Amino acid sequence: MATSTALDTARDGTKDPDVPTVGQYLIDRLHALGLKHIFGIPGDYVLTLYKMIEASPIELVGVTREDNAGFAADAYARVSGLSCVCVTYCAGGLSLCNSIAGAYAEKSPVIVLSGSPGLSERVRNPLLHHKVKGFETQFEVFEKITVASAVLSDPITAFGEIDRVLEAALRYKRPVYLEIPRDMVLAKQVAPHRPPAGLPPSDPDALREALDETVAMLTAAKRPMILADVEIHRFGLQDELLALAEQTGMPIATTILGKSVISEGHPLFAGVYEGAMGRAEVAEYVEQADCLLMLGCFMTDINLGIFTAKLDPSRCIDATSEDLRIRYHHYSDVRLDDFLRGLTARSLTLAKGPPPPHPNQFGSTWVADNNAPVTTGRLFARLNRLLDKSMTVIADIGDSLFGAADLSMGRETEFISPAYYTSMGFAIPAALGAGMANPGSRALVIVGDGAFQMTGMELSTIVRQGLNPIIIVLNNHGYTTERFLLEGPFNDIQEWAFHKIPEVFGSGLGLEVRTEGELDAALEQAVANTSSFSLLNVHLDKYDRSPALERLALRLSQIV
Amino acid sequence: MATSTALDTARDGTKDPDVPTVGQYLIDRLHALGLKHIFGIPGDYVLTLYKMIEASPIELVGVTREDNAGFAADAYARVSGLSCVCVTYCAGGLSLCNSIAGAYAEKSPVIVLSGSPGLSERVRNPLLHHKVKGFETQFEVFEKITVASAVLSDPITAFGEIDRVLEAALRYKRPVYLEIPRDMVLAKQVAPHRPPAGLPPSDPDALREALDETVAMLTAAKRPMILADVEIHRFGLQDELLALAEQTGMPIATTILGKSVISEGHPLFAGVYEGAMGRAEVAEYVEQADCLLMLGCFMTDINLGIFTAKLDPSRCIDATSEDLRIRYHHYSDVRLDDFLRGLTARSLTLAKGPPPPHPNQFGSTWVADNNAPVTTGRLFARLNRLLDKSMTVIADIGDSLFGAADLSMGRETEFISPAYYTSMGFAIPAALGAGMANPGSRALVIVGDGAFQMTGMELSTIVRQGLNPIIIVLNNHGYTTERFLLEGPFNDIQEWAFHKIPEVFGSGLGLEVRTEGELDAALEQAVANTSSFSLLNVHLDKYDRSPALERLALRLSQIV
Ligand SMILES: Cc1ncc(C[n+]2csc(CCOP(=O)(O)OP(=O)(O)O)c2C)c(N)n1
Ligand SMILES: Cc1ncc(C[n+]2csc(CCOP(=O)(O)OP(=O)(O)O)c2C)c(N)n1
Repeated sequence: MATSTALDTARDGTKDPDVPTVGQYLIDRLHALGLKHIFGIPGDYVLTLYKMIEASPIELVGVTREDNAGFAADAYARVSGLSCVCVTYCAGGLSLCNSIAGAYAEKSPVIVLSGSPGLSERVRNPLLHHKVKGFETQFEVFEKITVASAVLSDPITAFGEIDRVLEAALRYKRPVYLEIPRDMVLAKQVAPHRPPAGLPPSDPDALREALDETVAMLTAAKRPMILADVEIHRFGLQDELLALAEQTGMPIATTILGKSVISEGHPLFAGVYEGAMGRAEVAEYVEQADCLLMLGCFMTDINLGIFTAKLDPSRCIDATSEDLRIRYHHYSDVRLDDFLRGLTARSLTLAKGPPPPHPNQFGSTWVADNNAPVTTGRLFARLNRLLDKSMTVIADIGDSLFGAADLSMGRETEFISPAYYTSMGFAIPAALGAGMANPGSRALVIVGDGAFQMTGMELSTIVRQGLNPIIIVLNNHGYTTERFLLEGPFNDIQEWAFHKIPEVFGSGLGLEVRTEGELDAALEQAVANTSSFSLLNVHLDKYDRSPALERLALRLSQIV
Repeated sequence: MATSTALDTARDGTKDPDVPTVGQYLIDRLHALGLKHIFGIPGDYVLTLYKMIEASPIELVGVTREDNAGFAADAYARVSGLSCVCVTYCAGGLSLCNSIAGAYAEKSPVIVLSGSPGLSERVRNPLLHHKVKGFETQFEVFEKITVASAVLSDPITAFGEIDRVLEAALRYKRPVYLEIPRDMVLAKQVAPHRPPAGLPPSDPDALREALDETVAMLTAAKRPMILADVEIHRFGLQDELLALAEQTGMPIATTILGKSVISEGHPLFAGVYEGAMGRAEVAEYVEQADCLLMLGCFMTDINLGIFTAKLDPSRCIDATSEDLRIRYHHYSDVRLDDFLRGLTARSLTLAKGPPPPHPNQFGSTWVADNNAPVTTGRLFARLNRLLDKSMTVIADIGDSLFGAADLSMGRETEFISPAYYTSMGFAIPAALGAGMANPGSRALVIVGDGAFQMTGMELSTIVRQGLNPIIIVLNNHGYTTERFLLEGPFNDIQEWAFHKIPEVFGSGLGLEVRTEGELDAALEQAVANTSSFSLLNVHLDKYDRSPALERLALRLSQIV
């Protein structure tokens, strides 16, 4: 469907290789930022760019559907710091809205590249395929769900726009949008251009004053501690966090979104704090701190245990990439990384409170009661044992997420879940993204039957890429999380023989599990099967739920 | 996750049953408009509304993913005139962007209902789950891809807003958006309110003048004829079209989007016009008409055979729901239905040109060459024979669409395809929607392997609803349409044993087809299997293509 002029020129190659084109500059910048893969699906409006990427050191990873490219890229960015999807106009791009919105909400820097009709094709506003209202519709939609966006419609501004938009992705750790009309891919640079130097530094005076104040609060406290959250992941500050904690002896709790920023086997680890939704001893421990240093926190309803958290602002220092709040006043222009390093540099001596609660409530042994039907609680206890090894745990939402919050994550174990945006269907495509970003870490994916039905067939690409995640389908026969909010026939779904899906792909190990004995045996088989994905279809009662969901239910029934 | 106040009241029932609530008024209006089904997936922000729908005469049809609800609803609206999806906030709603954009582009009136956080929950702008930038983000996105939209945030205006938005859907045959904060569902009406009377009529003077002019042009012509398109479908004007043609003897060609507005066995049927992309004898016949009455046409690139159509405006009368253009001037406020009925009322006697070209190029017999591998051309020739019976043909994009354009559709056979917006993955969910709208018509679904991988698992709901479509997967091992634009490894996809998918659902007949003999036998089995879906995995060479795609390739190579 392409008028083939642009493609043609692409085949010719650029005539003067020293003057970069818009497309080549963009790809070079992505490569310079360390990007190794781009997820997506081709289409005629983006073929010239595809050809260029194909010829670059960056590898294209084809997926089955665009929204899954978005979820995969989101996970890739969480693991490696930055990611990219490349799709065609509207039919491709608008399919990404939900997954990119999720990346926005949870601060994951995904670069969206979209082709679009060439500027020369737009004269007289013809009805070109994939067009919705106007040629600008897709851009206008993405403005609402990204932190920066541009249509590269002029070679004079395009190079600067690329820099501006990419910088925003790095600075705010949010998705950005770049649209390239297909006849602009090969447009040549018209004036010399240089990539920017780096992100703006902190205001040194504001930083110093904020550090002084923080030090004063921490040293005056009897029970200072840290609450660490998602931005520690996003800005790659795990080592800095650990250095501060070890130097000062402050215990660290995390939120559910921040889970795994510190090894949960570490003696300073104080548990996952979720207000009344989490374990009572953790809530008590955190809420009794008289000075809480909150680092990179995201005060979402779920992180706050559906607003059951009791965090008195007059005892809090709340540092994020967007704002630094001490008690009731704010500092701007203080970078989170500078603040964290600055605190460590002060070599503080702080008071020590009581030791943190024991992190692992599962106990260290798990013996199968062979003929007993599997319950959600026993399943998570058994999964907890798997995590000795370094793995990436990916939890979809629903009871997969609630249950996984209690898992004890060791060093080098990463926890990935859309715990704030909570879109179903994240986990399987995310396993693809995480696997591409870090093939050395095997994924343990926990996913509800409802969520699996949304995007589970992306296992197709996991097969293509030779990855070997272990997939646990919590087959509780419908939308269990919804059932206890309001039961009705709309919570029922079609039963799938999930374990037969490997036959469709001609690869993968599928196992059906009903009893504890079968669970034990199946997990052992799955761990041993390193050459393909393994999928356990674990049958659970439709009203069964994890201890965590039990706590949430109790909590909600108290509100009612 | 709901604060349960709203749910609670829902369980109580409305205290004074005579004063309607916002939610009940909305559901009553939908019911009054003839809606029998609503597609969607529940979520906590929309549970109160779900409960209300559940208690109404309208049936909820749960799907596996929200975007598929959009495609299903699009097809449902094409068949029955109006449709509705009901989803939760953002994670649900933003998943609909692509399918609703497609419905916008192709004029299919889908009503999008979305729940959202209650107004009382929004104080201090908390980070509630599913939120992206602000509480208005989803509304702002849907403004860009619907023809009317509203957030029902005030009981004083809500009733009027519902009327305004629903009227826009009926008038413009485009999607609309209604968002209901969850604490507004049970808000009571505060002032008496009455639904509106109907759509505004034509301006009688403009109508008369336009008819006079049209009659003059038609009666002066030696070869007048009709080109009929998609709006005839959307406004349900098929009978009026036929009446005009039969009364005046004018032949009717259709576009590919308008395919099946008239029985292709009708003696006045002149073929599917697609410029140089279509059959040469049809192009010649249409382009030699000296007066072309275009009815409800949509001048898209694909309808115009990638702009190879030669339609001289000085010989055209171009009537659509948005505009009436005669030669180079325009009339507004002339309704398409009034115009069509007005013309018929004039009882014209018109000149007759040569008889239209023979519609069926496939011939009436098809004998299997038993061991010959199936080719795309032979496959479509064989499918053409199936269409003796009344069926709904649903074509996904790619060669499924190009090939299907040549199928000869009899009376009461409906053709559905996203021939302008051309989003892959439309067909399988559309078979669900079309089947719910008209269970009496069996669907023949033609879908590429790439497109099937996007949404094919929606067969799950087809099983749940007991429908029995026949699915033909054109398994040409990748993105064949793209291959001839630009070949590269990004056009390859994972091989699926599509015919094994029935095992996952525990229902359906799956058959693998490689030879003509197998094709013949499999189609007979499929026709005989009326109790479940049948799926034929038809292996084709990856560079094989239909005669129509062949013509398109030729045409593109001429541009190059
Ligand atoms: C895309 C999307 N649609 C709808 C919802 C609303 N929702 C929240 S939980 C839930 C049920 C999840 O079911 P399942 O994945 O089987 O997990 P379970 O609750 O059974 O653990 C639904 C429908 C959502 N979060 N995301
Ligand atoms: C959602 C979506 N993504 C990408 C495209 C771009 N595109 C157009 S045709 C095509 C290939 C279609 O492959 P398949 O469904 O197997 O049909 P075939 O071309 O092989 O007949 C692609 C990727 C599209 N139209 N829609």
